[in-house]
Amino acid sequence: MRHFLTLADFNKKEILDILKIAKSLKENTKKGVFSTEMQNKTLAMIFEKNSTRTRVSFEVGIKQLGGNALFLSNNDTQLSRGEPIMDTARVISSMVDMIMLRTFEHSRLEEFAKYSKVPVINGLSDSYHPMQLLADYLTMQECNKDKNPIVCYIGDGNNMAHSWLMLASKLGFELRIASPKNYEVDSNILAKAQEFAQDSGAKLILTNDPKEAIKDCDVINTDTWISMGQENEKEKRIKDFKGFCIDESLMQHAKQDSIFLHCLPAYRGYEVSTEVIEGSNSRVFLEAENRLHAQKGVIIWLHQNN
Amino acid sequence: MRHFLTLADFNKKEILDILKIAKSLKENTKKGVFSTEMQNKTLAMIFEKNSTRTRVSFEVGIKQLGGNALFLSNNDTQLSRGEPIMDTARVISSMVDMIMLRTFEHSRLEEFAKYSKVPVINGLSDSYHPMQLLADYLTMQECNKDKNPIVCYIGDGNNMAHSWLMLASKLGFELRIASPKNYEVDSNILAKAQEFAQDSGAKLILTNDPKEAIKDCDVINTDTWISMGQENEKEKRIKDFKGFCIDESLMQHAKQDSIFLHCLPAYRGYEVSTEVIEGSNSRVFLEAENRLHAQKGVIIWLHQNN
Amino acid sequence: MRHFLTLADFNKKEILDILKIAKSLKENTKKGVFSTEMQNKTLAMIFEKNSTRTRVSFEVGIKQLGGNALFLSNNDTQLSRGEPIMDTARVISSMVDMIMLRTFEHSRLEEFAKYSKVPVINGLSDSYHPMQLLADYLTMQECNKDKNPIVCYIGDGNNMAHSWLMLASKLGFELRIASPKNYEVDSNILAKAQEFAQDSGAKLILTNDPKEAIKDCDVINTDTWISMGQENEKEKRIKDFKGFCIDESLMQHAKQDSIFLHCLPAYRGYEVSTEVIEGSNSRVFLEAENRLHAQKGVIIWLHQNN
Repeated sequence: MRHFLTLADFNKKEILDILKIAKSLKENTKKGVFSTEMQNKTLAMIFEKNSTRTRVSFEVGIKQLGGNALFLSNNDTQLSRGEPIMDTARVISSMVDMIMLRTFEHSRLEEFAKYSKVPVINGLSDSYHPMQLLADYLTMQECNKDKNPIVCYIGDGNNMAHSWLMLASKLGFELRIASPKNYEVDSNILAKAQEFAQDSGAKLILTNDPKEAIKDCDVINTDTWISMGQENEKEKRIKDFKGFCIDESLMQHAKQDSIFLHCLPAYRGYEVSTEVIEGSNSRVFLEAENRLHAQKGVIIWLHQNN
Repeated sequence: MRHFLTLADFNKKEILDILKIAKSLKENTKKGVFSTEMQNKTLAMIFEKNSTRTRVSFEVGIKQLGGNALFLSNNDTQLSRGEPIMDTARVISSMVDMIMLRTFEHSRLEEFAKYSKVPVINGLSDSYHPMQLLADYLTMQECNKDKNPIVCYIGDGNNMAHSWLMLASKLGFELRIASPKNYEVDSNILAKAQEFAQDSGAKLILTNDPKEAIKDCDVINTDTWISMGQENEKEKRIKDFKGFCIDESLMQHAKQDSIFLHCLPAYRGYEVSTEVIEGSNSRVFLEAENRLHAQKGVIIWLHQNN
Repeated sequence: MRHFLTLADFNKKEILDILKIAKSLKENTKKGVFSTEMQNKTLAMIFEKNSTRTRVSFEVGIKQLGGNALFLSNNDTQLSRGEPIMDTARVISSMVDMIMLRTFEHSRLEEFAKYSKVPVINGLSDSYHPMQLLADYLTMQECNKDKNPIVCYIGDGNNMAHSWLMLASKLGFELRIASPKNYEVDSNILAKAQEFAQDSGAKLILTNDPKEAIKDCDVINTDTWISMGQENEKEKRIKDFKGFCIDESLMQHAKQDSIFLHCLPAYRGYEVSTEVIEGSNSRVFLEAENRLHAQKGVIIWLHQNN
């Protein structure tokens, strides 16, 4: 059974196919034309961690495909009360048609998928956030930034950085990641990306210097320095990320028509300045809207390939 | 773009038009006839404050119109984690077709509406509760209390009192508000109502004497003395509201066929006696049911006028 | 008005009728054929206690019947803030078409049903869990264990034990309940079951010896020793339930082709061993899936009989 846990499991053609479906679904939605392909199907959405964008985009998405959404917060399952994942997976997957799981360790997702009778979608794990990347690449396509782009990610070497590594190494474009010392990407995930890059021709550059990363870039990306659960490290992190705020002076090193992306929520004055996120290069709200359509693409692809 | 934030933004004809739609939708519902006007449309309901009636009536309402409801509690958005309203508004409104917001300061609603791409409905703010007033007036119409009625509101000069001021001053009927000293209505909102009253011919009477207010009234209204968030002032408020309980002895000053309304939840023995709320003049459960139909009226009106 | 609060209110024919509907709905679901009998109808689900299985199965169930689900957690109603049940019941039942309530004291359910204008379903009370029993019996039917079966329940004399008493005494089969001293079933409920048993010919055996109960059984059932809200008694209960774990050595006293049921969540090493729950006699995940179909049977039966 095909799941959607990380882009590592997909080849270039499959990724572009999903995006093609997403693009077509978006165009139809704008025209008021809705699919009924998921009629009588239910997508369960299990959130061990909260979310706005993932919740709204999946729930609206499945409904725009004619299906039903079932929202389970951390209070609504027995997972938080210690039920083994394999039990929850077997029970819920016997009643619904697809499952999205937002969780902590990526291994929880893998365990869930192993016991599920229906396709499982990663709605964010500590290691990867592949749905966001599809929305980001859809935005790049719409902004004509998908022809040999130079992309940089400036910030924490977290699940967003890891997912950019997967996307770049699968599709074969140049990616530069600038993180402060001790906040670099996971070395195992990097090694995996470098392996994919040998096939695809992707160029992966890791640095601790934001200026080096952003030089002549087409696409600039960042993420919050303090993710949910890291609030107690806030002061230390702010100090450690000094110089990594994407502001106008840093943006001047990028191409003039570059686009700025951010998966939100954004903390102005920290990872990005107000001027940049509200400025003319910013595409963050187009990017947010594209979550909706990218996810519909994944749902339909999984439905058709299982 | 037309939103539904306060009745101050609507003229008499528009208010009556919404009620006409509501009445017709209620009749159809009773016959088992359902509209599909909101098919493939999603109403997001954001609750920064909890609610039963508002939640159930909006969720059932949009579904009876063929649409979808998306419920976001305070845990389900980033608002409670400090995301700027303008970001949440832009993101959510790019994915749904209408948004209901229940919040604290009325300015939060105005800020949300300013950045939203879709119509925004006030599901309760610290200043106004216009949806409740439409349900109340629909109930008055059904009970033949809409021809030059004398209406009194006895209790806290809160969002319910303010909303009665708007309804009366727009439609042009007599409204008497009796509140204890230091619990009177907001003077700015009162000034606005008095301005509207000059046009409509409404008579607005403010007093500290419940008996003066209720004399010969057709419609008697009250609300809890202790709203959510005021629990720590409970003892003080109970003392300050002495004499403001609507009981049978107070009701004897009203017209014999008057109707008693209450937006619920009711605290028997405080703002109303058990005898009155369960008595033959009480229409509180008809009023509660009418929330459902009044809200469908607002949804359809906004859909047709945007 | 017919509600579904306990099997005590149903006769044998009615119970079997519901199961017949459930069976037929399950077969249709497997073929991708869905009923639209509940179109434009809303089932409100009020959870004063949390749940996975009940939530998922009711929500997916009503949608597979063409209707809508409205999920109200304990935070979403005024019940937890002290609103009288009779008010909540009258308000919510004026807006929806059916109500499921999961609550504590069974009297809360009875009070709710008394004031509701629409049918009320017990989604679990401190006394009974009749929905689970229908799923269990559907599983017995599918496993050919419904012809004069010998059934045992080994564990806490709780709502599950009580519901087995009702099912056995209504349908007329042999039921043995083994509980530790001081954890026996409620004597009033037992008396009621014994009364029903006189009519049906059911044989009800109560014991403190698990080996006596399980001997030559066709169906073996248990439940957690520590239900929600009993976490502080955990250590005492584990001591008191010593010898009541259903493990392979205990299972050897049952018939070789017996089936093991558990309403889940299961705590391996306590009420059941890993070997038994994952073993070849276990039907717990079929049983869990059957919640979905049993509940659709109840919904349709109530819809047709009111």
